[in-house]
Amino acid sequence: MSFIEIGHGSGGKLTRDLIEKIFLKYLNSEELKPLEDAATISLDNGKTAITTDSYVIRPLFFPGGNIGKLSICGTVNDLVVSGAIPRYFSVGFILEEGFSLESLEQIVKSISETVKNAGIKVVTGDTKVVEKNKCDGMYINTTGIGEIIKNMSVNDVSEDDSIIVTGNIGDHGTSVAIAREEFSIDVSLESDCAALNDLLIPLFELEGVKWMRDPTRGGVATVLAELSETTGLGVEVFENRVPVRHDVRFISDMFGYDPLYLANEGKAIVITSSESANKVIDVLKGHPLGKDASVIGKISSKFKRARLKTKIGGERVLDMLEEELLPRIC
Amino acid sequence: MSFIEIGHGSGGKLTRDLIEKIFLKYLNSEELKPLEDAATISLDNGKTAITTDSYVIRPLFFPGGNIGKLSICGTVNDLVVSGAIPRYFSVGFILEEGFSLESLEQIVKSISETVKNAGIKVVTGDTKVVEKNKCDGMYINTTGIGEIIKNMSVNDVSEDDSIIVTGNIGDHGTSVAIAREEFSIDVSLESDCAALNDLLIPLFELEGVKWMRDPTRGGVATVLAELSETTGLGVEVFENRVPVRHDVRFISDMFGYDPLYLANEGKAIVITSSESANKVIDVLKGHPLGKDASVIGKISSKFKRARLKTKIGGERVLDMLEEELLPRIC
Repeated sequence: MSFIEIGHGSGGKLTRDLIEKIFLKYLNSEELKPLEDAATISLDNGKTAITTDSYVIRPLFFPGGNIGKLSICGTVNDLVVSGAIPRYFSVGFILEEGFSLESLEQIVKSISETVKNAGIKVVTGDTKVVEKNKCDGMYINTTGIGEIIKNMSVNDVSEDDSIIVTGNIGDHGTSVAIAREEFSIDVSLESDCAALNDLLIPLFELEGVKWMRDPTRGGVATVLAELSETTGLGVEVFENRVPVRHDVRFISDMFGYDPLYLANEGKAIVITSSESANKVIDVLKGHPLGKDASVIGKISSKFKRARLKTKIGGERVLDMLEEELLPRIC
Repeated sequence: MSFIEIGHGSGGKLTRDLIEKIFLKYLNSEELKPLEDAATISLDNGKTAITTDSYVIRPLFFPGGNIGKLSICGTVNDLVVSGAIPRYFSVGFILEEGFSLESLEQIVKSISETVKNAGIKVVTGDTKVVEKNKCDGMYINTTGIGEIIKNMSVNDVSEDDSIIVTGNIGDHGTSVAIAREEFSIDVSLESDCAALNDLLIPLFELEGVKWMRDPTRGGVATVLAELSETTGLGVEVFENRVPVRHDVRFISDMFGYDPLYLANEGKAIVITSSESANKVIDVLKGHPLGKDASVIGKISSKFKRARLKTKIGGERVLDMLEEELLPRIC
């Protein structure tokens, strides 16, 4: 087995070797190949979306994915919920001295597959190496560029709009926690880590679709609390309509988590006019990633904040996440 | 004094506080303010350049700069040497639990000043927090987008072209090494860390300017060795024409470094037709950052590689950096 050495980050011969033997082997867009300091891309005239995320997830490999797949899906999803078609990506690695080249190759391969499935291109990259114990195996930054084809603004959200979630919530948070062996429990659960472009882009053409967000860190509750704060509108969520997998519910009940605050990496919240809600649900359910889509609530001026109507008829406020449930979930 | 807590990376309330109290205080472009998942930018129709870099420099503060200033300058320079005017930047922070908020604020302030001077905008960002001992204070990723206004291709480089360096080399590498107290020596030397847009963009209009590169990790020698390898052309460098500050020369002699391999963060190598070389030097010398510009060599098919003609009349090959001189220099 071979390992990352400090020299792999020198910008010299070893860096070049790593780029040629691993990165170019799997990521070989025309734009990346020249290995110049900057890549040249062509964008259609119009509005462009840009988003960046650093991924520090622990562990690097988890049921349903790894940091490589996650680093593409997460950034694809940030673009899509902004009404953009994802196009060009940069990928920056921070590697720890001693990290296995075999694991690196697995992760880069996974990036390559995810990139192909999402129809995007990696056009530029960077590799830095830090000493042993100065990172946790690997951190990845991806920055994504997309073409905006649907203007979505939180300002369009209004009274009586429907709140849709595209599937079961909390799978990512729960699976990663299990992979960390934080629970002494044996369930087979996978992260929902997925690129949502195929699921969500068809919604861009539907009338009534107003705003989307992917509920990652902080979960569905944090997105809705922020939505309420930003718009000044109330949000009403019905607990019995929120789709949660049995295992996630079970583990949450057992360990005192609330699925509404657990991270997702393959789900979106969609705000739509109530008239369009059924049509949106139909379109979502036509795709495997949307088969459990559900209207979970509505915008309602009865409240000034985000509120949950619980199964047993109670009510409680959904605030932004205050205490970190599971650090380094993405 | 206040410190970074794990919760600052939760995506919840503490993250929001940090964004509002530090990031938006200093970085307040119209594009950044909405704090959506992706920012909207407008690019003129045409070719766009994109580049990414993660910064892992140690120490975070060094004479002449800090990781914040460096993270903007380095990425600005990668765009400029690609013939682009830098426009929009993303900034992603990975912060270590316990990092001082005061230092973070200093670094963000420095980013803000550098951004203003370089005429660019930070339009989107990200903050992650990792546990104590899982990074080294802070790592930063910046991704930059620019508009290409000058087509430069390494394929245009040809026999007899002049090789220009825009100023004294090795200042950055040497100052950072001194800041790390690797040498028990007391000299006052500053990193050359600077954004080169004002210096280099005027060259875009000069006839004969063919290609540029900023010699960061691996130094001038690595850039020229790569140039030779990529083009199949020989490169001849005259040691007595290479501008090196006295202190850098002295420290290099003393500790066995070669300034040609030391990192720079405010210098460029410019390849120009020999007829245009004087004009390019004149333009460079008209700017404070280019006052020590010098023609250091030429493209010459007498050799098949990059070669240095030493002061005492000897000759040696300039290869790509093999052994890491100073890890984590950028």
